[in-house]
Amino acid sequence: MDDIIIIGAGPAGMTAAVYATRKKLAVRIISDNIGGQALYSSGVENYLGYKYITGEELVQKFEEHMKSFDIKQEYVKATGVRQKDGGFVVTTDRSGEFEAKTLIVASGKIPRRLGVPGEKEFANRGVAYCSTCDGPMFAGMDVAVVGGGNSGFDAAVQLVKIASKVYVIEFGERIIADEVYQDHIKQASNAEVRTNTAVKEILGDKFVKAIKVEDRKSGAISEIPVGGIFVEIGWRPTVDFLNGLVALNKIEEIEIDCACRTSEPGIFAAGDVTNVPEKQIIISAGEGAKAALSAYDYIVRGGI
Amino acid sequence: MDDIIIIGAGPAGMTAAVYATRKKLAVRIISDNIGGQALYSSGVENYLGYKYITGEELVQKFEEHMKSFDIKQEYVKATGVRQKDGGFVVTTDRSGEFEAKTLIVASGKIPRRLGVPGEKEFANRGVAYCSTCDGPMFAGMDVAVVGGGNSGFDAAVQLVKIASKVYVIEFGERIIADEVYQDHIKQASNAEVRTNTAVKEILGDKFVKAIKVEDRKSGAISEIPVGGIFVEIGWRPTVDFLNGLVALNKIEEIEIDCACRTSEPGIFAAGDVTNVPEKQIIISAGEGAKAALSAYDYIVRGGI
Repeated sequence: MDDIIIIGAGPAGMTAAVYATRKKLAVRIISDNIGGQALYSSGVENYLGYKYITGEELVQKFEEHMKSFDIKQEYVKATGVRQKDGGFVVTTDRSGEFEAKTLIVASGKIPRRLGVPGEKEFANRGVAYCSTCDGPMFAGMDVAVVGGGNSGFDAAVQLVKIASKVYVIEFGERIIADEVYQDHIKQASNAEVRTNTAVKEILGDKFVKAIKVEDRKSGAISEIPVGGIFVEIGWRPTVDFLNGLVALNKIEEIEIDCACRTSEPGIFAAGDVTNVPEKQIIISAGEGAKAALSAYDYIVRGGI
Repeated sequence: MDDIIIIGAGPAGMTAAVYATRKKLAVRIISDNIGGQALYSSGVENYLGYKYITGEELVQKFEEHMKSFDIKQEYVKATGVRQKDGGFVVTTDRSGEFEAKTLIVASGKIPRRLGVPGEKEFANRGVAYCSTCDGPMFAGMDVAVVGGGNSGFDAAVQLVKIASKVYVIEFGERIIADEVYQDHIKQASNAEVRTNTAVKEILGDKFVKAIKVEDRKSGAISEIPVGGIFVEIGWRPTVDFLNGLVALNKIEEIEIDCACRTSEPGIFAAGDVTNVPEKQIIISAGEGAKAALSAYDYIVRGGI
């Protein structure tokens, strides 16, 4: 039996692993990917210590750092969790089961879907959820980004350099992205921002050809011809495998206190999967450290 | 008037400055030092992205990072804070007064020193104030922990797994650490607890070689050969200049919620000066980011 199983290997999970192993605990990390959402950040300017680094490079540094310690690693998917003898059993899709005294859930989140006709049909044929990964495939085309938050504007800032025209479609009345992003887009001659606009349908034949949008003030429906659409409207926490074992808030994030404790003694959580107020690499890393130290404290104090 | 004045330029304050300025806020940072306690970590192995870096080097990277942005910097001491027109005025010892809509207090804490000969000379050369940070560097050596409270015993519990022998030195007549910690130390074959013992001097050449102690009952002086000494006799948050403007807990830390809000609207706090459960560079950096984003939110939402 391990002391701690960490589920997820993004910034929160990897930092938790380093902190826990430095406390000489037996640590196993289970994840079907390394890096989590940090991988999809084209450029990171706010992880202190690196003025500028790509998400991929930063993840690589985290990974090397983690792998310099003796941490058991299972690159499989956690499919379930159950309680056993005061500890926990984690089931996986390909490596059987693992037992531990405590769990740290750092399983992150995945992008939300628009849920409109055409979204599924044209997935990977014009509908994308990661501009860093898929942006270059839309060189010279007109594209739309759906979502006026930081993710949407980050995507748009990348795409104005690649695509011939970029529409930014925001459902709400105002743009909530950082001013620095907004400035970039204002300076771009090939960007157009539309607020109060709902995407109703994605149209095409083999590939996306247009999106049907509604002006939410006038109710007018129109089509915007685009070859690609990037959906950047938020994220869904990866919590299904927990089978309701810990309390979630109404947007399905794991509720934690300031020490990363969940509603279930012995289960801790950190990073984007939780209700931590901001989703940022450096915040997730800090939260991962907190979760590991709280789990250590729980073990030392005889929680199990 | 600035949007945000940040008091303190350790990891929390510098990260807050970077985050706030990226939101296009007018930011001023006031501090009589750069780096805070991070400077005193001889080696940092748990700031993700850097497998090993000295505290000094990491602080330098933070500083360069911060200075790549347009942030007003005042290297003076904040001596007072008062409210004015919904905002705040910060007084300093050498640069007059500054006004801002919001404050982020990231003024840190300072470890209580033993105040014995050798302590200053051997700082970072065997004398340490943080076992989580520096413990692993004393692998296989004999070390002493000074302080029989929870901090001292927590340090000792970690160190018995790393060091070859751990002396716990307590000035008073009895140990006040929690039983769980004491139990761990009783079970450790390589720990020795000495109560009624005063550290008189730290001895060495290039590095610490021994401590000179006095048996407070007999008055007998002896030397204990150790390669390291962890001073764990408490910390003091830097809060005097706040003049009681925000609520503190009983050990004088600023009480914050999980979004770094203090009891006073418009004043946020981050890092070691707060009741955040752990004092770690990466945690402080994450908290600084949170505080900046909370202050931004407060300004945008019209708190002032």
